[in-house]
Amino acid sequence: MNKYYIAKSRRLRSTPFTSRIENHGVTTYTTYNHMLLPASFGNLEKEYFHLKEHVQIWDVAGERQVQITGKDSTKLVQLMTCRNISKAKIGRCYYVPIIDEQGGMINDPIVLKLGENKWWLSLADSDVGLYAKGIASGLALQVEISEPDVNILAIQGPKSFKLMEKVLGKKITELKFFGFDYYTFKGNKFLIARSGWSKQGGYEVYVENRAAGQNLYDELFSAGKEFQVGPGCPNLIERIESALLSAGNDFDNGDNPFECGFDKYIDIESDINYLGKKALIKISKIGINRKLMGVLIDTDKIEVTEGIPLFSNNNIVGDLRSATYSPNLKKVVGIAMVKKEYWDKKTPIELKIGDKKSIGTLCDLPIA
Amino acid sequence: MNKYYIAKSRRLRSTPFTSRIENHGVTTYTTYNHMLLPASFGNLEKEYFHLKEHVQIWDVAGERQVQITGKDSTKLVQLMTCRNISKAKIGRCYYVPIIDEQGGMINDPIVLKLGENKWWLSLADSDVGLYAKGIASGLALQVEISEPDVNILAIQGPKSFKLMEKVLGKKITELKFFGFDYYTFKGNKFLIARSGWSKQGGYEVYVENRAAGQNLYDELFSAGKEFQVGPGCPNLIERIESALLSAGNDFDNGDNPFECGFDKYIDIESDINYLGKKALIKISKIGINRKLMGVLIDTDKIEVTEGIPLFSNNNIVGDLRSATYSPNLKKVVGIAMVKKEYWDKKTPIELKIGDKKSIGTLCDLPIA
Repeated sequence: MNKYYIAKSRRLRSTPFTSRIENHGVTTYTTYNHMLLPASFGNLEKEYFHLKEHVQIWDVAGERQVQITGKDSTKLVQLMTCRNISKAKIGRCYYVPIIDEQGGMINDPIVLKLGENKWWLSLADSDVGLYAKGIASGLALQVEISEPDVNILAIQGPKSFKLMEKVLGKKITELKFFGFDYYTFKGNKFLIARSGWSKQGGYEVYVENRAAGQNLYDELFSAGKEFQVGPGCPNLIERIESALLSAGNDFDNGDNPFECGFDKYIDIESDINYLGKKALIKISKIGINRKLMGVLIDTDKIEVTEGIPLFSNNNIVGDLRSATYSPNLKKVVGIAMVKKEYWDKKTPIELKIGDKKSIGTLCDLPIA
Repeated sequence: MNKYYIAKSRRLRSTPFTSRIENHGVTTYTTYNHMLLPASFGNLEKEYFHLKEHVQIWDVAGERQVQITGKDSTKLVQLMTCRNISKAKIGRCYYVPIIDEQGGMINDPIVLKLGENKWWLSLADSDVGLYAKGIASGLALQVEISEPDVNILAIQGPKSFKLMEKVLGKKITELKFFGFDYYTFKGNKFLIARSGWSKQGGYEVYVENRAAGQNLYDELFSAGKEFQVGPGCPNLIERIESALLSAGNDFDNGDNPFECGFDKYIDIESDINYLGKKALIKISKIGINRKLMGVLIDTDKIEVTEGIPLFSNNNIVGDLRSATYSPNLKKVVGIAMVKKEYWDKKTPIELKIGDKKSIGTLCDLPIA
């Protein structure tokens, strides 16, 4: 496949760490919430094995925060998601589907409850802040909605625990998965969550002070030498194997949360009030006839830039939305929206890329 | 400056013309409304001179449409903009600032009135559809909001009129600036507007049928040989000289429409109802103390990836937001948000890029 450059501009915002990751050899960007998000440092497979064995520092500032504060803030957050957040606790993270009134997916952020009336939505790639502003204006809610200058550094990989303990002290090791708390480094307080866009373990540091965050970045690299720390970014291979869904890739506004497999984050039983509840109740009664599944394909190369149809003979089985070669499984791994009649995974599938036909099988998510 | 690749994916959507512009030698993309938008075919200056002399075909499918239909559609469109659209006519385009309740800029689309209850908002780069959905849900408006599969082809440059006449017939030459109508090519109807993101004249074809649009694309190239037709895209040099503002570059949510020079699109006198009206009335009473202006800098190279402070001695004059070298003016031309005390354009300005200091002057917009 030919490669194309990215045209940088103020509109595709740089992060406080951009000059650092460029010194560290980033080669490829994507954009995420109108910001540069690193996509590779030149060798996706090497980065994949490194992530699974050591520790990486990621500039994921593109995961922008929508901050919602004020008397009606909890009401507004609940209005946007089908997950029941009425029992949410301060200091905890919640993965929530954001949907519209028709039940279509808008985003799948991590919601952080910072106070009784203070929430952050740590976004996938869409302007949820505008959705929130529209609802708040329409209902005259007493809220303030903003995008604070919070820039996340993720520390990911099995050795992230040792590295963070070395830099931030023993206390950080007590943090439970999807919990967050404040920790001090060189006199600056950082909100740190045990979370991240890999299944290899680690933390996300919500940097509120740019200079302090840059110092922390540098310290993580210097203290991390003994753990073979390296630069990195959300890794396409690892995230597909782990079924960390990507909004806009694996699902979009044409899909509902049942089709995405988000059943456990959908509350249609209790009396909570959210946009799209009626639509989801209706969908749950009728049932869905497609859902996201894993795909294994017997080939060694693929680049997905738009949905690729999967066939069984001449019948469409589904739509392949993300895929990449897994050096671990020695196959292409992918995520596809699959029709109900093929959910039993028994039907071999075919796809055509250019002139080349490949065959494969469906599987459950996560893949590996 | 180092160059970086873009990581293609389904999330950064390809357009119906992507394979064609890649065959035509596109080298650089930006992203726009979650879609690939070409940014260069390898030589910005050559493309600039070509655009000003001949005719270019642009894949600007990234200018996505928010379609708003239904009984309350006009009410909803008006709620989002400070421009009075109560007298808008079917078949006309309107440039409108979209603002939030605080008066902050969200977008600056072209609005097309397609019917009494049918509107398209041809967007700059932000998810205005989500803002519309939020307002509609909050106010329980009777509207349908969607992103139809409309992919714009722009035909720009002084010879665009001859080319379009050749391909679509004499009638297209009667279309007035910012008017639109339907024209037939090989049995397919196309909505065509006399508009475009350059000041060199031309048209935008709102392609609703992908295959028909691809045929039109091919025909424009084949019929355009005698006019030296070439591939192209919104040109950074031309758009800065012409002061075609870019949302996210020249202004963002922190700026209000007065500061952007949109005074003639602001109605605070009549009784129309829009979000942010109270805020704009308040701002108009207090007055603004910064606004967008042109900048001319005595240097031959610049790359703006974030705001660059402009100084006079050690005082901040403003924030340079877009800039590029103009081979026409033999200077760097730019757009900056400038403090009131410098609006008289008398103060020389300085800026520092890396170790290099440059000097320049402020000027009015458009620059050339």
